Amino acid sequence: MNTITLDITNALPDGVGENGIGRKELEETIARLSEHFSKLIASPMPFMMLPSTRFQFDEMRSLADKIGKMGIKNMVLLGIGGSSLGTQTIYDALLDPFHNHEERFRGGKPRYFILDNIDPHKMGAIIETVLPDIDKTVLVVISKSGETPETISQFMIFKELMKKSPGFQERIVLITDREKGILNKIAAKEGFSVLNVPDGVGGRFSVLTPVGLFPCALMGINIDKMCAGAAGMAAHITRYDGDENMAFVIAAILCLMDKKGKNIHVLMPYCERLSGFADWFRQLEAESLGKKGFGPTPTKSMGVTDQHSQLQLYVEGPKDKCIVLFYSATREVPIPASFDYLDDVAYLANKDMKDLFHAEFQGTRLSLTQAGTPNISLVLDEVTDYNLGALFYLFEMVTLLMGHLIGVNAFDQPGVEQGKIYTKAMMGKKGLEKERRHTEELLSKPAKAIVF
Amino acid sequence: MNTITLDITNALPDGVGENGIGRKELEETIARLSEHFSKLIASPMPFMMLPSTRFQFDEMRSLADKIGKMGIKNMVLLGIGGSSLGTQTIYDALLDPFHNHEERFRGGKPRYFILDNIDPHKMGAIIETVLPDIDKTVLVVISKSGETPETISQFMIFKELMKKSPGFQERIVLITDREKGILNKIAAKEGFSVLNVPDGVGGRFSVLTPVGLFPCALMGINIDKMCAGAAGMAAHITRYDGDENMAFVIAAILCLMDKKGKNIHVLMPYCERLSGFADWFRQLEAESLGKKGFGPTPTKSMGVTDQHSQLQLYVEGPKDKCIVLFYSATREVPIPASFDYLDDVAYLANKDMKDLFHAEFQGTRLSLTQAGTPNISLVLDEVTDYNLGALFYLFEMVTLLMGHLIGVNAFDQPGVEQGKIYTKAMMGKKGLEKERRHTEELLSKPAKAIVF
Repeated sequence: MNTITLDITNALPDGVGENGIGRKELEETIARLSEHFSKLIASPMPFMMLPSTRFQFDEMRSLADKIGKMGIKNMVLLGIGGSSLGTQTIYDALLDPFHNHEERFRGGKPRYFILDNIDPHKMGAIIETVLPDIDKTVLVVISKSGETPETISQFMIFKELMKKSPGFQERIVLITDREKGILNKIAAKEGFSVLNVPDGVGGRFSVLTPVGLFPCALMGINIDKMCAGAAGMAAHITRYDGDENMAFVIAAILCLMDKKGKNIHVLMPYCERLSGFADWFRQLEAESLGKKGFGPTPTKSMGVTDQHSQLQLYVEGPKDKCIVLFYSATREVPIPASFDYLDDVAYLANKDMKDLFHAEFQGTRLSLTQAGTPNISLVLDEVTDYNLGALFYLFEMVTLLMGHLIGVNAFDQPGVEQGKIYTKAMMGKKGLEKERRHTEELLSKPAKAIVF
Repeated sequence: MNTITLDITNALPDGVGENGIGRKELEETIARLSEHFSKLIASPMPFMMLPSTRFQFDEMRSLADKIGKMGIKNMVLLGIGGSSLGTQTIYDALLDPFHNHEERFRGGKPRYFILDNIDPHKMGAIIETVLPDIDKTVLVVISKSGETPETISQFMIFKELMKKSPGFQERIVLITDREKGILNKIAAKEGFSVLNVPDGVGGRFSVLTPVGLFPCALMGINIDKMCAGAAGMAAHITRYDGDENMAFVIAAILCLMDKKGKNIHVLMPYCERLSGFADWFRQLEAESLGKKGFGPTPTKSMGVTDQHSQLQLYVEGPKDKCIVLFYSATREVPIPASFDYLDDVAYLANKDMKDLFHAEFQGTRLSLTQAGTPNISLVLDEVTDYNLGALFYLFEMVTLLMGHLIGVNAFDQPGVEQGKIYTKAMMGKKGLEKERRHTEELLSKPAKAIVF
């Protein structure tokens, strides 16, 4: 019934010896976080208010209702990074894995296409897929700044495709800053609907705003329960202190691991539905904390699949990793005794896939621990809207707290600006003529290359 | 025209200063590899022979033809790790991204379902999806040892589902060792078709055997051309020496980067079709080299998507990474001037998505380089069966050569055995009673946990 259990046993010296975090340093670090949190409570970051403000929930619901009555067949989401990872995470967790494949798995809801890349091969294929029903397609365009070139160029393409179908204005929704940016100008001129990103909430912290939630409302996902989960986690973090506070404990362990040279954080869900969640936190951690020459590197592995790919390295490779395991399984799939004439596989017969899945999770935990590779685990009794909301809020707080310990601003991303300028310059943006010449100079340097 | 161009400029001191590999150490390392390669040529590893032996190509083709005539609607592949990653890579690269969604994108070929995990939620969903056409479903079961519990338990389930449909024996193909293992016993007793893994070829080196190729033959992919690509690359590696040999150069750079503390290898394809390839090499590198406390950690990022997720960390984070970029784009998707009243986006109008994609690739290369983050890039003029075969062979050789430099056996994976034993013990396998008691003991230790 919406329980999340964090187990840190295997990140302590009792579990992994000298690779573990000693009690004293853990206590001290948690105390620092507790002190910092008192200040945060007095003057909270804007994203921390989202579970209680429920920003534009009414607008989202009424717009989703209106669109729901149009007989929509395709939902196309244009957005990249923080503008798509939240929605993808929620869809992965709560929609049927074969939602897009067959009508019977989506129960009257539209198919969805999240264009988080501009690879022209994939773009072309998506256009071919939605084109026959372009008059039954809703377009959701998400860019906080309104200037993301990937999203704007995709928008240009889709607007042209849609504009011949009657009432297309009703089927375009823009999600952007409250005032700034091109998308507001376009909406004003063309009459598209607009939802907003609340002030002071950056892309990667925006899952509990219209950015993450409106596309979910379109699919009939219960955004109130998700928000209630986030509020529940906010209450937990406010109510509990010290080593009873889940956010303090995770932030402290991940930072101390980083400090001990275990700077690779492997996010390893034993739960396909949490695959997107690992990608979501991977962005949050990398972009918030990778600064000034520091910052852990997050990477994703899937349980059990990557036992057959990465586990060898995690067990016998360098001790530069901390593994963050997630687990959830409720469905039962019985294993019949199909080959009962074979002793070698008799132990599997008449068990359940869920038991095997759980045994593999435990087997991996034990073998990592025996090898001295620290690991923590979060077990969800169920993957629900409520639990997902709680996880989002928990890991946003973990990131904010880690930023405090590492001593960086978790809310900027100065390192990606240069690449954006190079790209715009190469595409011929006005005012960037000097930068364009600079890129041409750099690219014309003799290269050391081999051709096959 | 099947060209692959490797550019290492940005891994050298001219590009990234002290973060680059000096000329002398590169030359010395390549010389060591060249010497080792002479020995390998004299006594090659079994996988090195595959492009010329074309193991069981006739058997694959005739079996695929026979099955092709049955009016198959679903292909279910049971396999994990090396038993599925090769096929997934080839499908990602060469089939339509929406192959499974609509008949028009698969041109009469079956839908495919690769069960590389046992998550019961996903398993259940796949069973529901294929069940209505179970009498038109072909099952391909891949396990070299024949003892992989994930695959065998899935096989038990699917055999039960299929056995009520007439002629189901004709629609089950097992791919396994030539002699050993349970699958051979099952095939003999039940009359299923069998293809083999050649002797001495381990799972992760088996993509150019029936393991990777038979599922492709079923989809009408040209396995001869893929094999020709591998043979072409084998010829390149034999013909060229020193810094003109692509395999020597990549292996030397990746190893020297690891030695310099740049032990995270980011595989970053600007090409959605090479997403699977990154996963494939991620297994090959991690499982082959992660041993004795050493070994680089591979991780995957997607260009351009992860510019909005990981690039901040790669640019401003610790200098512990070497980025391996891939690029390929041929399709054109014009960007119309939809918002030509807006100066801010005018630079995008009337360009092509391919141009933007390429500018982002170059922008990322430049900004990584300016920040001192070493990177190499492989540009494919096209993603073809031939080029894919060449890439497989190239990176298998790179891995083998890296194993020599690091001083490990690239062909074993001792670190995963303990976890397998724990799992089997927990599932009640006979003869593992002692291990079962041991796991129970370990799991009954008091845990440090927090519940939300």
